[in-house]
Amino acid sequence: MAVERSAARSRPARDTAPRHRDTGLKQERAVRTRGQVLDAAAEAFATQGFPAVTVQDVAALAGVTKGAVYFHYANKEALAQACAEEFYHRLGVIGQEVEEAELSPLQAVTELLERTARAFRDETMVQAGARLQIERSLIGAEMPMPYLGYTESLTVWLRQAQQAGQLPAGTSPEATARVLVSAFFGAQHISWVLNDRADIAERVQEILRAVVPVAART
Amino acid sequence: MAVERSAARSRPARDTAPRHRDTGLKQERAVRTRGQVLDAAAEAFATQGFPAVTVQDVAALAGVTKGAVYFHYANKEALAQACAEEFYHRLGVIGQEVEEAELSPLQAVTELLERTARAFRDETMVQAGARLQIERSLIGAEMPMPYLGYTESLTVWLRQAQQAGQLPAGTSPEATARVLVSAFFGAQHISWVLNDRADIAERVQEILRAVVPVAART
Repeated sequence: MAVERSAARSRPARDTAPRHRDTGLKQERAVRTRGQVLDAAAEAFATQGFPAVTVQDVAALAGVTKGAVYFHYANKEALAQACAEEFYHRLGVIGQEVEEAELSPLQAVTELLERTARAFRDETMVQAGARLQIERSLIGAEMPMPYLGYTESLTVWLRQAQQAGQLPAGTSPEATARVLVSAFFGAQHISWVLNDRADIAERVQEILRAVVPVAART
Repeated sequence: MAVERSAARSRPARDTAPRHRDTGLKQERAVRTRGQVLDAAAEAFATQGFPAVTVQDVAALAGVTKGAVYFHYANKEALAQACAEEFYHRLGVIGQEVEEAELSPLQAVTELLERTARAFRDETMVQAGARLQIERSLIGAEMPMPYLGYTESLTVWLRQAQQAGQLPAGTSPEATARVLVSAFFGAQHISWVLNDRADIAERVQEILRAVVPVAART
């Protein structure tokens, strides 16, 4: 399955194996600080948006000095890139978890969208990534392209469902995947503006029933 | 039909009837300048986004002085509000045109989405409105809530289709309208990021086929 990848903090870097106790402790602390800084950046971006956030805000939220932030990230743009990569990495992890659950293809489609909806509702890093995605044109840095891997995952499952004769005749797996992703993206935005994402799970159920009724019944 | 309304420049204000020739010419010029400023603001917001635009940019694009901009709009926020209102007014006009075409309810749904897609692709004011909608949390001013009237228009037509027995059993007009709007909003954003909106008409066809297949066949 094609899922988004990133050099995210949750996977151990190759060079963290301590050579002796002292270096090990230092590196452990550095990894922890890096995580705190990234979580603080996510909090700041999710609530204030990229243009309003300063590196000082992130340092204050993380409880570290500005110097500590700059030790890990060159500037605010690098923090935004790291959050966006972490967001797509998270979507990829959700995709892998669904794949490992060994559901039928259409159940997998449903489960992926439902889990993603909960992540958008509950996880600050995901909210930050979604907002940074929307604000991408305001960020002076290369940002990941939106939802390509996620759409590809859905397409693969929908193709499997089609091959198993589980989709209505004439359904295009590619088009259906694109419509699901568009509808999800639009729904999470409108749900955010109108209801602070409180109703996102219901909106996603609605999308599934409208676009893949056969999946909604499995 | 419930459509968005605004005090948009395209409708003549009640007080423009000239009392004598001189005042009439002055007011005509003022109305023209106001329109130029608003078009320039739309151009600036659509291409640069709200945070990057200055009132000086708008004045330069409109070919007027900064003073002339401030004569009509108190600040950048007021320009953004005026563009957003003009955007929703435009959506309302598209809705009225479709209504006046006296199509069947499902044809009206299709026609509305197709016309809206072309407006997103071709009209700077609409592109500005869509971008300002996305950037609403960065704008220190009350902005119209997104797509409520548009969703209501779709709901009315879908209810008529349902009453005429033209929708599959168990279809909710309200839910279908919300899914269509979410999918449209998501598709125009993703189409903008990936293809500068060149493929938005195809994406909307895809949405219609997936969500209202019975309408796509009318």
